[in-house]
Parts: sequence; structure tokens; C-alpha cells
Amino acid sequence: MDKARIAIIGASGYTGAELVRLVTTHPGMRIAALAADRNAGKPLAEIYPHLSHLDLPTVVKTEEIDFAGIDLAFCGLPHATAQAVIGGLPRDLKVVDLSADFRLRDPKIYETWYGHEHHALDLQAEAVYGLPEFYREEIRATRLCAGTGCFVVNGLLPLVPLVEKGVIDLDEIVIDSKTGITGAGRSSAEWKLFSEVTAGTKAYGLGGTHRHTSEFDQELTKAAGREVTVMFTPHLLPMNRGILGTIYVKGDADEIQATLATRYADEPFVQVLPMGSAPLTQHVTGSNLCRIGVTPDRRKGRAVIVSVIDNLVKGASGQAVQCANLMLGQPETAGLELAPMFP
Amino acid sequence: MDKARIAIIGASGYTGAELVRLVTTHPGMRIAALAADRNAGKPLAEIYPHLSHLDLPTVVKTEEIDFAGIDLAFCGLPHATAQAVIGGLPRDLKVVDLSADFRLRDPKIYETWYGHEHHALDLQAEAVYGLPEFYREEIRATRLCAGTGCFVVNGLLPLVPLVEKGVIDLDEIVIDSKTGITGAGRSSAEWKLFSEVTAGTKAYGLGGTHRHTSEFDQELTKAAGREVTVMFTPHLLPMNRGILGTIYVKGDADEIQATLATRYADEPFVQVLPMGSAPLTQHVTGSNLCRIGVTPDRRKGRAVIVSVIDNLVKGASGQAVQCANLMLGQPETAGLELAPMFP
Amino acid sequence: MDKARIAIIGASGYTGAELVRLVTTHPGMRIAALAADRNAGKPLAEIYPHLSHLDLPTVVKTEEIDFAGIDLAFCGLPHATAQAVIGGLPRDLKVVDLSADFRLRDPKIYETWYGHEHHALDLQAEAVYGLPEFYREEIRATRLCAGTGCFVVNGLLPLVPLVEKGVIDLDEIVIDSKTGITGAGRSSAEWKLFSEVTAGTKAYGLGGTHRHTSEFDQELTKAAGREVTVMFTPHLLPMNRGILGTIYVKGDADEIQATLATRYADEPFVQVLPMGSAPLTQHVTGSNLCRIGVTPDRRKGRAVIVSVIDNLVKGASGQAVQCANLMLGQPETAGLELAPMFP
Amino acid sequence: MDKARIAIIGASGYTGAELVRLVTTHPGMRIAALAADRNAGKPLAEIYPHLSHLDLPTVVKTEEIDFAGIDLAFCGLPHATAQAVIGGLPRDLKVVDLSADFRLRDPKIYETWYGHEHHALDLQAEAVYGLPEFYREEIRATRLCAGTGCFVVNGLLPLVPLVEKGVIDLDEIVIDSKTGITGAGRSSAEWKLFSEVTAGTKAYGLGGTHRHTSEFDQELTKAAGREVTVMFTPHLLPMNRGILGTIYVKGDADEIQATLATRYADEPFVQVLPMGSAPLTQHVTGSNLCRIGVTPDRRKGRAVIVSVIDNLVKGASGQAVQCANLMLGQPETAGLELAPMFP
Repeated sequence: MDKARIAIIGASGYTGAELVRLVTTHPGMRIAALAADRNAGKPLAEIYPHLSHLDLPTVVKTEEIDFAGIDLAFCGLPHATAQAVIGGLPRDLKVVDLSADFRLRDPKIYETWYGHEHHALDLQAEAVYGLPEFYREEIRATRLCAGTGCFVVNGLLPLVPLVEKGVIDLDEIVIDSKTGITGAGRSSAEWKLFSEVTAGTKAYGLGGTHRHTSEFDQELTKAAGREVTVMFTPHLLPMNRGILGTIYVKGDADEIQATLATRYADEPFVQVLPMGSAPLTQHVTGSNLCRIGVTPDRRKGRAVIVSVIDNLVKGASGQAVQCANLMLGQPETAGLELAPMFP
Repeated sequence: MDKARIAIIGASGYTGAELVRLVTTHPGMRIAALAADRNAGKPLAEIYPHLSHLDLPTVVKTEEIDFAGIDLAFCGLPHATAQAVIGGLPRDLKVVDLSADFRLRDPKIYETWYGHEHHALDLQAEAVYGLPEFYREEIRATRLCAGTGCFVVNGLLPLVPLVEKGVIDLDEIVIDSKTGITGAGRSSAEWKLFSEVTAGTKAYGLGGTHRHTSEFDQELTKAAGREVTVMFTPHLLPMNRGILGTIYVKGDADEIQATLATRYADEPFVQVLPMGSAPLTQHVTGSNLCRIGVTPDRRKGRAVIVSVIDNLVKGASGQAVQCANLMLGQPETAGLELAPMFP
Repeated sequence: MDKARIAIIGASGYTGAELVRLVTTHPGMRIAALAADRNAGKPLAEIYPHLSHLDLPTVVKTEEIDFAGIDLAFCGLPHATAQAVIGGLPRDLKVVDLSADFRLRDPKIYETWYGHEHHALDLQAEAVYGLPEFYREEIRATRLCAGTGCFVVNGLLPLVPLVEKGVIDLDEIVIDSKTGITGAGRSSAEWKLFSEVTAGTKAYGLGGTHRHTSEFDQELTKAAGREVTVMFTPHLLPMNRGILGTIYVKGDADEIQATLATRYADEPFVQVLPMGSAPLTQHVTGSNLCRIGVTPDRRKGRAVIVSVIDNLVKGASGQAVQCANLMLGQPETAGLELAPMFP
Repeated sequence: MDKARIAIIGASGYTGAELVRLVTTHPGMRIAALAADRNAGKPLAEIYPHLSHLDLPTVVKTEEIDFAGIDLAFCGLPHATAQAVIGGLPRDLKVVDLSADFRLRDPKIYETWYGHEHHALDLQAEAVYGLPEFYREEIRATRLCAGTGCFVVNGLLPLVPLVEKGVIDLDEIVIDSKTGITGAGRSSAEWKLFSEVTAGTKAYGLGGTHRHTSEFDQELTKAAGREVTVMFTPHLLPMNRGILGTIYVKGDADEIQATLATRYADEPFVQVLPMGSAPLTQHVTGSNLCRIGVTPDRRKGRAVIVSVIDNLVKGASGQAVQCANLMLGQPETAGLELAPMFP
């Protein structure tokens, strides 16, 4: 079978590079085009020295790509830019977008959280939320898939089944998330310097102001059939990859464990650990896995859930490939069977 | 004035070394004896190469110290060992113990959490909890002071005033703590190897099983005048120093902010930041500071409090010096005015 | 074609885990047995939680393996142990050993550097040095292959062609190597604790006392046809993976560059960069690549060569798979085409 | 005695912050003015949150400082800017400059290495090289002191006595230096991002092109009384502080050791370790110490010297305070007796 021809738009960021890493050894895909407007024309060895040994297409501007020869495009641009660029692509081109532009169903909510009107409402209307564990059939059928926020997939995988089944108190969900810094991307800023980040930690987006909060609201409210408002606080840790979500809930730990174990028994990328276990982020690095552990609190009726992913894989580029596999009719796990790299 | 003559027992661990660092430049103390049973006789350059330029006493066994010449001893031994050793010291010697042995008022509770009977009940009866911001006069008057758990001082400084004043819901306190690894001490173990710790994070002591939980119970229950049971989860981060506590509470954020700002206006080592600010751990490294920030949640009646300390300073050796200053009649801030070292 | 059945002996160390990672996605191999004497019987989720999602054989003792069903065994045991264990294996079993036991041709030299007599001289006699770029045909033909020292492959790849062609001064070679800590293995020791290693660096094995020096001597002397004695100093860096060798030589930089570029033009895993470029270790992480850059010194007739590898891949388990591919008649690059993981 | 009134110009960089840290607890200095043109008017809590608890002057523009009230100014500006700003200061103001502007005696050489003409030749003529161990009396007498390059002080302390005494081969000196990233300052750049720096290492300034090379040339040539040209390669390590220089020389190790031990017997900040010892950078963090260890190579007549400093202290701000102490007639060690902070 011919390999699907893949374009990566916004190739020079970290999610773009991660897509190149994953697609390079994917049995059913090959990279046919790379676009990075700011870096167009530069040799790949300059943009990504770590990939300089690969025989890759020259990095061009998006408009220089002949999309007639492309089966699917990944788009790794920032929000707002993404909607403008994707709006200009052929309407029959399959697209997996990694930005926030097509995640929120309600344009008013998008406007509130992202500070500007949405300029591609028709695209937004057709987009499917790119969480295969909950939207598998919709993703198979769509031509535009919106990759989820990295914190959100980490939190939704444990929470959605519990909310759907009504086994936890919907008004008392606290999500305390810890992330590596690659999620913040490759643009320069003082706060991202090694000297500022190493050897310490901080909370940010406090009080429910981080934009991923809107995705939690949307998906948990949908799952519950009533409004769900979580407390969510992200933290920055001195590490590159990994998100660990510590989720405090009210509910019976055994019921929580059983609900999750049943729900994910057949999911290839979600692993529910035995009761009382807690997964480590360094143990999923480089893989598309989400590991979840449940522990009862000493007070009956309360539990702590720990969920881990690699933010650049299951939290971004890996999940994007998972969605692309579905959209292209390929095996869902193709190219994603890499074992975690530890240490 | 003559400098107080200080003995450091258990000098070869990280808290011991940190005591040496602090006492060395303390204007009112000098190191008169160093004991480390396992390392007795070894040159300091072998135990602590970083201190090899200092003119320090030879490291001896505890029983080799002539306590007649000592004004105050710091004891940096593990629990159980600490009570045995301190039990053998002269009864009029001033002692600041950094172990868990004398923190808990109720011997039954000690037994439950530490898995063995307490063998120095008379000492336990006279010990004062070493949190100067709440036990200042008791510490001045005692001859045995029990340094607090590192997570506990980080959590109690923001919580006790709120619990005392009744401005938060006592049944809905969640403390999500993140720590550097030095709190785990210097003994070898696979899980503490660089390769296992760097580039990732984990939760541990889940469900309220970490021993510091017992100190939260004791002190918050005392402050409230009724039983208080928190949810507390520590996390290990890939860094040496620092604890960041993210505390989720139900209460009015303005009232919380005002209560803390008022309570700590005159405390030299506790800094309450303006509403909405969140302190970073790397900004208190090497100092005895605790910084606290309050942010209202988007849901009225809920707030997030972030508290940071250096676990080896305010969380251990620095607070021990602060207590010793009180016990010796020296200025409370003596030797502790070092600015944070950043980056 | 049936996949080759692979045994991994000493599976619980870092090189063992790395072998599992690589073999898991190797198109021509499957893991048929895992042995780790100390950890035999333990669930893999305890030994290597990061691999707990894989369907792997139970970890057993070496003697429990039925080698009739095995095509090739990787042996990741420490030196001395390795020769004892391999001595007990069937004499027709293909073996790639990652220890130092079969690297040195002269048993007297082995004795000098490793402090004990060699107890498997017959095996040593048949072993081939596992550096495919120089011993490709010998490896294809052997049944016992001795993986190289990690520092050594990093240094030999740039040096051997220069020594063979006589383009550098054989008496003035300085190799200053920097390594991540995973090369030191997974056994516990104070000096390997996160707290001791992070945020600093040290030199060790000074003055030519590191054991890998003996391999440099052997291979460079062989390449030169006369005795070559290098200055070699390894350094430990606060990172998990990667070796960077900075090699100071006397010779013409253009000739050096040309010699290396020509020599490695067709080698799949050795990439010679354009003159004046210097590779980074983080850009080869997880891959089997060696990247080499040459820069002329400001003094004519001197040059600096920088060489990088991932010590666990090209420096250990990846190169072992490369050798195994040759021994099994599989494509040399099979299972080793993983792109570097950055960041 | 009144404390000397200190101005810090360029206060918002890392060396500026480090000066604040050191001066804050200096018994003979107090901070009277802080200037940072780009950040003037901003609250210190925004520029340096870690110092927000201190009662410091408002950060102003340099021209807003009334230098009549200042005894000595530290200048932490980049080269070129430094000469312009210092040229505008009162001619009787004592100044310690941390830039490269006044280090090189020959303006032509400055022009060659820094790419532009020197615009303050009169100032350059009066400046003294700020290496107290070799220019103590000149520093005492000067009013303008030029702090040394961080790599240079690390290399000159071991090398100058050997070159002066003629105990090493002047044509065969190789300096392989490893540094933390704080030496690169606080300005934003992609290559300084946490994601780019952590978990790897690189060589840069290869072939003798790093600007500090010019200082090595100047000072070693002066010490030798003939031209000395070293091979010098800096490397960036994933850590904040610390420089480790590995210096390869030809000479008798015993003579080298004896020369250094004798030369530094009375120097407060230079510690020569016993033969065969090698110091670690993490063991001098936060202190003004330089530790030096000598090891004989296995080939007679060759040796390896390892030298470590904290680049922000002995390599910049600490040495600047040491010079200022001399210029102000204060004890040379005042304010610099802080013990290293480990871990």
C-alpha cells in the first residue's frame, strides 16, 4: 500500500519536530511537505539540527505547498494564525490542527477565552474534538480534527467516565496539574530561560484563568448533562516533558477504580493501574500512553486520582497521529507503538 | 559577647551540612562540636568536600562530645534514633531536634504513624513545637524544641490564621505539595538516583498516608478547637530545594488575604504577596523566607493559596536556627538574613 | 520471516531496559526471555514500571531460560559476572555481551585494568570487538561479540581513521569526555543521588586511570601499528544520556575533515558535519547516531574534534542491536531508525 | 564605622542580582542606588521577585543617580555600553566594571576581538585587571577596576604561577572549560531556553574564537615574558552556576602541585587540594572560592589540573566585591565568607 503523504505546517516548533519524529518511522505515512513561514528556505540542519541526518523535504512557506499531492496536513501553528491558515487550505484536505482554534464548540466562549472573534466559523462547525477515546467514530468521519489541550486530555481521560456514570460529586473536582515546559513552545521569553526555570517550580493561571479551563468546562458539562465547573491550577516544573494531574474527587474509590478499569480495558493507550498505584511522568516519556492510578483518601467518600502523559505525545503530536490514523483508515496504533524512553 | 558554643549531632546529612553553612556566618554562634557516628573520624573533606576549606572541629561520635562546653545542640538524626540519643544527653542542655520524634503531643498518635512505641515520653512532654510564628514564647522558655515537618511549616503558615479566625471551611482543605528531593536525606536508594528523579515527577504518600499528615491534624485541630482532617498529597520534583504548597480552600479570598496580611505584618520571615500573586520556590532558595500568595477562584467562595519555602532552610535547618536564637536569647533573625540565591 | 527469538540477560539495569525498548519495535526480533537474577520473579511493573503495559515474558533467573528456543542473547551484566554467566551458556548460542569482559585481546592487560584474572580465556579468544564500523565482517561471522566501552566508541569513531591514515600526531591526542550518568548503571550509591549530581560537574578517572583507557590503547595502537597513548579524562554531567568528546589533535584540519567525511560517507549511523560545526548531545538522544564536527584551531596544525553519541544507544544497547543484526543476517539498521527525541 | 555607599548599575541582570545578594549582608557596604535603564521605575518585585522582601532603593536610570552620595559603583552592563556609561560618571568615583571593556591593555586587540573601536581609551589606560591574587596592590590604588572574564579567572589561577615559574611547557596548554548558563546573562534567546539546554551539552567558541581567549593570551604572555597561545574550548552544561576547567599541561606533576600549594598558601579564596584530588563545581556554589586539584598523567611529564569556581561569584560579582573591598580599604574577605550552598 502506498504511504499517506503528509504535510506538516508549523514544522519548526516543538510539536512540529515531534510530528517529524513520529511520522519518520510510521509504517503508513511519509513526509511530503514541511512548512514554517518564518524559517522557510533555511536548511533543516539549522531549524532542527537533531533531524539533520534525515532526507526530508526543504522547509517552505505554506503557500508553496502543492496540496494536490497531500493526503493529510498537520497544523502546528499558534491559535488565531491556525484558523487563518487552515481557512486558506483546500476544503477537501484532511487536517489535524494542534492549536486551540477548533476545540471550543461555542464561538462566544472562544471569544471570551482567546480575546478575539473567531474568523473561521464554518470550519469550527465541522471540526471534531480530537480525543479518540471519546470521539472515535466522529474522528474517522471528519476531515478537520481539533487536537485537545495537553492538560485537558490528561484530565478528561480519568474524569469523563466518572462524570458520565455519576460516580463523583460534580461540584467538588480539583485538578492540580504539573507540566514540563515544552508545552509552552519554542518562542523566546525570559521566563522560559534555563536559568529561570531550573531548580524551582511555580503555579500559574491561578483561579481558573488558564485557557484550557474552557475545554474542561465544555467536555465535562457535555459528559454530565449539566454544568460542571472545576478548580484547575497548572504548575511549571523543571523538566521538558510530562504532565501529571493530581485530581481530588468525592466519590467511592472502589467504584471509581472499577469504572475506569472497565471503561479503558480495550483502549490501547490508556492504562489503569491497580488500586493504590500512582504513575510517574518519566515512565511515559516519548510514548502515547496515559497511565491512571486511583487511591482512596483516608476519609471515606474521597479519592485521589493521578494521571500522567507525555505532553508532546499523547498531549499533542502523538494524539494527532492517532487521530490521523483514524481519518486515513489506518490502524489506530500505527506509528505509536514506541516504548517509553527511560531513563 | 561570647558566641554560643554549638554542637551539631548527625552532621553528615543534608540538614547537618545546612546547619554548618548557617552557623558558620552566624554572628552569635560558633561550631564547637560535630558528631556523625557512622562517619566519626573521617576528615570533613571526605564527608562534606564543600566545607573542606573551613576550620571545623573533627567529626566525632556523639558520646565523645564534652557537653559541659556546649550551649546548644542541634540534632539532625532520623526519628527513633533521635529520641535515643537525646535521651542520653545532659538534661540541662538546650536542644533543637530536627527529627519527627518530639513533634506529636500524643504518644499514641506517634505510635500509629511511626510504627513503634515512643521511648522518651518525659522528653516528649517537655518539648515545644518549633514553629516560632505560633510558639515564640514557649520556644524562648523551653530547653527542647522539636523542629516541624518541612511540608507542615509550608502549609501551616498560610492555614493556621485562617483556621483560627474561621474564615475557611474546615472540612474542605486540600493541600497539594511539591518538593525538591533534599528532604529525603542523603542515604542511598535507587529511587533517589539522578537517573530516576530527573526529567519527571511523581505523587507519593497518597490518600493521607504521609507522616506529616499527623502534624497537620494536630496543629489545625488545635487552631480550630475541633477536629480538622485535610487532604494532603506530596509530590517529588526534579530539583534539590524548595516546597510549593497549592492549597485549595472554601472561603472569601479578600478575607483570606486580609487575615494573612494582618497576621504576618510584623513577622520577619513570612511575606504575604499582593492578591493574585504567586511566589516561586527558586526565589526563596537559601533563605529562611516563606512567601504566600492568595488568588480568588472563578467560583465565588473559593480560593487558591500558594506557599513556598526552601525545605532545608525554613523547612529544617534555618527554622532550627531561628528557634535556637530564641532559646539562647539572641535576636531571632541573627544569622538568617541571607538573601535568596537566584538563579 | 520468523522473528529472531531474543533473550536479555541482566534485564533490570539501564542497558537492559534500553534493549527492551529497542527490541520491542524491531521488525526482525522478539523478546523470548528476560533474566535478572536479583529481580527474578518480580513483576516487570515493579522492575521497570515504564514497560508495564507491554506483554513481556516473566523475568526469571538465567538458568531457568531454555536456550534451545533462543537465537541470540544480549548480556547486560557487570564485568566478571558476565564471563561467568556467558561461560555457562550453550557454545553455539549467539551472544552480544555489553560488559568489559571480552573487549581486551590481551588477558594480562585485562588483569591489570580489572584487577582479577580472566576466567574465560577460550571465550575471550573467539570474541570480536563490537564496533561495526571497523569490524563489520568479523561481527557477521562471530558468535560472541563484545560491545565497546561507551567513551571508547565515541572517541574511536573520529580517531581511528585519522590514526590509520597518519594525519594526526600520535603522541599528542587529548580526549576530554563529558557523559550523562546513566552509564554508571542503576545500582545505588551516594555519589549517584540526584542531590549530589544535579547542578554541578566533576572530572574523574584522572590521569588515565579510567578503565576505558585500555580500549583506547588497544584499538588506536592497532590502527597505528605502533603504540599510541592518549590523555583521557571523563567528566560527569547533570544529565541522563549523552557523551560529548572534545578531542584535541595536531594535524591539518582540512585533511582531518576530508579523511572523516570520506571514511563515513556510506555509514548509516555516523554523520560528519560541515567544517566548523559542533554537534550537541541532546540532538542524538534516543538514536543510534554518532555526529562528528571538526574545527581548525587558531594555531595552524592543530584542530578540535567534537563527537557525540547517546551513551545508552550507540554507546551500549543500540550498537549491541546493530551487532546482533549483523550476526543474525538482518539489515544492519533494522530497529535502529528511530529519530532523536528532542527536546 | 559608616558603611560604604554602593551603586549598582545594570542591576537587573544576573551579575547585578548577585551583587545585591552579596552586598546585602556585607558588613561594610550598603546599597545606596540601583540603576537599570530598561527596567527603571519598575518595582524590584517585578525585576527580581526573589529580592522583593528587601528594603532596597527604587531602580532608576543611571543619570538619575546622585553620585555625590556614592563611594563606589559596580557596573554590570554589556561591553560597549559599559565604556559609554562609565565614561559619563564622575572621574573620582571608584568603579568596578564587570564587562570586558577594560580588561585588555591593547586597544587594537580589543578592537579585533570585540569588533569595534574602543571609545574610552583614557579610562582603559587607568584600569587595573581585577584579579586580586595577582594585582592586589594595583587594585588597592586604582579607582577603576576591570573584573576578569569568568573562564579566565578559573584558568589563570592555576596557570599563572606555573607559567611564571616555568614549570610547564608554554606551547602545550589545553584548557577545556565547562560552564553553567548564567554566564550568558538574562537576555532572551532561543538557545538559552530550558528546553534547548537541559539534558545535553555542547562545545562552542571552538578553535580559539571565544573572546575570553584574548585575556588568556594577555595575562599568560605577561606572566611568561614571551608569547603564550593556549587551546581553549568552552562548553555549556545543563546547570546554572559553576565553571570547571580541565587543563592539560606538560610538566612534572609534583613540581606543579608544589608551586601551586606554595603560591596560594595564604590566599583566602584559593584552595589547592592534595595531589590526585579533583574539586566539584557544586561544592563551591554561592561562595567566592576557587579550588584546584593536580593529578599526574600516566605518561611522565604530563599532568591534568582541575579548577572550579562559581562563575557568578569568583567569576564575576564576588570577585568584584573582593576588588571593591581592596579599593575601599576594607578587609579583603568582608562579605565573602559565605560557605558554599550544597546541595
